[in-house]
Amino acid sequence: METDFTAQIIKQVITAWAANSKVISNFFSKYEDAYYLNEVAPGRNRAIYLLGHLIASNDSMLPMFDLGEPLYPELVTTFLRTPDKTEPDTLTIAELKQRWETLNTTLAAHFDKMQTQDWMSRHTRVSEEDFALEPTRNKLNVLIGRTNHQQYHYGQLTLLTQKVAVA
Amino acid sequence: METDFTAQIIKQVITAWAANSKVISNFFSKYEDAYYLNEVAPGRNRAIYLLGHLIASNDSMLPMFDLGEPLYPELVTTFLRTPDKTEPDTLTIAELKQRWETLNTTLAAHFDKMQTQDWMSRHTRVSEEDFALEPTRNKLNVLIGRTNHQQYHYGQLTLLTQKVAVA
Repeated sequence: METDFTAQIIKQVITAWAANSKVISNFFSKYEDAYYLNEVAPGRNRAIYLLGHLIASNDSMLPMFDLGEPLYPELVTTFLRTPDKTEPDTLTIAELKQRWETLNTTLAAHFDKMQTQDWMSRHTRVSEEDFALEPTRNKLNVLIGRTNHQQYHYGQLTLLTQKVAVA
Repeated sequence: METDFTAQIIKQVITAWAANSKVISNFFSKYEDAYYLNEVAPGRNRAIYLLGHLIASNDSMLPMFDLGEPLYPELVTTFLRTPDKTEPDTLTIAELKQRWETLNTTLAAHFDKMQTQDWMSRHTRVSEEDFALEPTRNKLNVLIGRTNHQQYHYGQLTLLTQKVAVA
């Protein structure tokens, strides 16, 4: 019989997510707060918006994994449904960084307790009927997707350059 | 006894990589070739360079997985060791797109044949001694990392905007 590597692979997927999250935390600790108010490229999202976007996006894993309500439901409208720079900022970069850290700690504690059967079961946005047809629409796949989503935006964040004041 | 989900999870990881690769293929089929000679942001890498970079990076999975020599070793110097815009382009966007597709087809055919034990075994850049200490340094982890790497650069590619001619 083959060795069952399921638990090890799940751990590898969680480790990849945690490592990516840490890289993003480090990025937001590198410069002074005002720096993150810049756009990553001319006319594109500001770094502060992308941080809020990543919090709101990852926060949705709590209800999707049946782990409870999102910690910050008030961020959904601003950072998932509304483009950047359409309304005044209601949260500072320091406040968003605090939420990012709290969310990561909360998620990591949950992930640590989840068993193989939890990871391989359907996430709450897919019905039992659809899941029966597509068993890959499980919670682990959501985490793989969220990790890729983080990296996508981290790639953009690394382009951030300070605006040069026009004389 | 728990169900062994190993094969299913490995398939999910491969599917995530293939889906990301397809998204990038689609991106490079969207515009005319000349468009990809633009930088993704002022002073940053050009899209054509990032495509070459992704080919060279993914091509290294062939030797790392003990599947043979890289298909395009001549790309390593230009796209992994040399920054963009330091030497004249030797390949057109059409030539790079062809290589990207051939590489993806080649990798997918190999991945399709690899068994669980192959994925969970060490990649060739880690020694047997180190692998014994860190069994997560396996081939599957390389694919997870390469998928994240692709997404990182895809996030940057989406920022590409056509240069406005200065009158």
